Amino acid sequence: MSAINHQLRLVSRPTGLPERSCWELTTEPVPTPANGEVMIEVSHISVDPAMRGWMTDRPSYIPPVALGEVMRAPAVGRVIASNNQALPTGSWVTGLLGVQEYAISDGSDLVRVDPDRAPVSLYIGALGIPGLTAYFGMRDIGRAAPGDTVVVSGAAGAVGSIAVQIAKIAGCRVIGVAGGPEKCAWLTEDLGVDVAIAYKSDDLGARLREATPDRIDVFFDNVGGEVLDRGLARLAVHGRIVLCGGISQYNATSPWGPVNYLSLITNRASMTGLIVFDYEDRYPEAIDKLATWIDEGRLIVREQIVKGGIEQFHDTLLSLFAGDNTGKLLLELG
Amino acid sequence: MSAINHQLRLVSRPTGLPERSCWELTTEPVPTPANGEVMIEVSHISVDPAMRGWMTDRPSYIPPVALGEVMRAPAVGRVIASNNQALPTGSWVTGLLGVQEYAISDGSDLVRVDPDRAPVSLYIGALGIPGLTAYFGMRDIGRAAPGDTVVVSGAAGAVGSIAVQIAKIAGCRVIGVAGGPEKCAWLTEDLGVDVAIAYKSDDLGARLREATPDRIDVFFDNVGGEVLDRGLARLAVHGRIVLCGGISQYNATSPWGPVNYLSLITNRASMTGLIVFDYEDRYPEAIDKLATWIDEGRLIVREQIVKGGIEQFHDTLLSLFAGDNTGKLLLELG
Repeated sequence: MSAINHQLRLVSRPTGLPERSCWELTTEPVPTPANGEVMIEVSHISVDPAMRGWMTDRPSYIPPVALGEVMRAPAVGRVIASNNQALPTGSWVTGLLGVQEYAISDGSDLVRVDPDRAPVSLYIGALGIPGLTAYFGMRDIGRAAPGDTVVVSGAAGAVGSIAVQIAKIAGCRVIGVAGGPEKCAWLTEDLGVDVAIAYKSDDLGARLREATPDRIDVFFDNVGGEVLDRGLARLAVHGRIVLCGGISQYNATSPWGPVNYLSLITNRASMTGLIVFDYEDRYPEAIDKLATWIDEGRLIVREQIVKGGIEQFHDTLLSLFAGDNTGKLLLELG
Repeated sequence: MSAINHQLRLVSRPTGLPERSCWELTTEPVPTPANGEVMIEVSHISVDPAMRGWMTDRPSYIPPVALGEVMRAPAVGRVIASNNQALPTGSWVTGLLGVQEYAISDGSDLVRVDPDRAPVSLYIGALGIPGLTAYFGMRDIGRAAPGDTVVVSGAAGAVGSIAVQIAKIAGCRVIGVAGGPEKCAWLTEDLGVDVAIAYKSDDLGARLREATPDRIDVFFDNVGGEVLDRGLARLAVHGRIVLCGGISQYNATSPWGPVNYLSLITNRASMTGLIVFDYEDRYPEAIDKLATWIDEGRLIVREQIVKGGIEQFHDTLLSLFAGDNTGKLLLELG
């Protein structure tokens, strides 16, 4: 093989929003896969809020990306050379392939995916970590039940847009909080959300109060900050907050805490954090269910695809934190 | 009857710490109990942090005390006149009898207690709301299990001092956070707590880190503020925070939120609020268990009893917020 691998490496840690100087573009020849290994040509790279956490040198659910290392990223790709019988050439796989064009793996960290069941990019979106996060968060932690009032923040994002639809499928009244009027229109017109609130322009407190006359049974939070505090203030008795993310906090240089947290006591409510990796043994069940809903037209999926090379990763990540994307943001190589 | 009832009424709502002007002492003749009613002579009045919340005009798990009303308080007393066969003269009862010397009731809001099983004052302490709160919080919400690391804040208080001992009975390693060295000595020397940390004088972060090498499985929080944030930072994977109270916040004029709350995500942990009234149907089971532990010498109970009249209530309440008490603070009338 004489292919050249273009890679994006983390070379300094950000304070606040990542700067271009955090990255270095490197090239190296692609090594020949050893016995038991495969070579993967990466086709789609996921761009997720959680990546910001991986750039910080702090103990977490996963070690930080080391300085000098290829940036960690869920991705999907095709096996183009194989010394592993389980993954013949032509197989499609997902895994943490990284922000690079080619990856070598012994297969132990890969999941083979079926390109006939769904477009391969969905395996890092609606059928990948974002979709699975929405599925287990809304069902297992939120325990969304018919008639419940469910609020999702970041509702037009990769996780949120699946979460609102799972709640609708579960028979809930669903309120989506999103960044602007176009996102809100998509939520109500295409995804069946009952009320959408554009938190940047609307009076969030008043709109949320109005939209939740029976208060909030499930609050699925991707945002944190004021949005979480407004949700806490509207919790129903025995309400469940699914803490999925806090995108408003990831680049914040002065940390913020939810001042209304004592609402958890007065409402005997809970706030529970979610890392989807805990549900790994149930991924097949969930992927099957999600794919079926997509086939049936009950789950609408939107991808915002940036086409280009890995040098686009930085700007794409920043656009995520600027809230520019609707649906799943990803980078398509080639 | 010609008895005169001395009562303490709430006449203005506090901002921050309650002031003496919030109260008015009133007197009125004790009415004759009507058919079905009893007259109770109040012997012991509970003084609890939660009372501060009842003074604020805000929707909560229980309506606020109305202006002009006798201050709400759990209390214990003896029936001294009865027109209710179920509660003959001489019966001992608990209930929200209020900060007054005599109460009239039809019995529907009273629980009869057994003065031979335990000293009557315990029915507003270790066998009353504080003990029941510790019991259900540590067992049902905290799910304290053998080998768990359990941290209790406000550990020398009415709830905390029972909570630490229930955790020890459950086979846990127990760390108590309390206000000062005397309280800490009581915790370790008398209650069997493994490590006690005086948060006002010790370096809480460093001491807590040192005391929790395996991090924290159950954090039973009565305090809030920095204490809760330090606990969040030390949570174990799948840790449980039992939110019982936030005494540092009740009189705070600028609200505070736990800035480390995203630790709930990275550790897939939960923070769950507790109001003991939800467990009412299981009170008898719990009271029996707690009383048995007391009989067996496994549960040590300390009361800090202020003797006097209801005019002492204000100062006693302030001493609670100053952190002066060890164990259960109460007012004994007579």
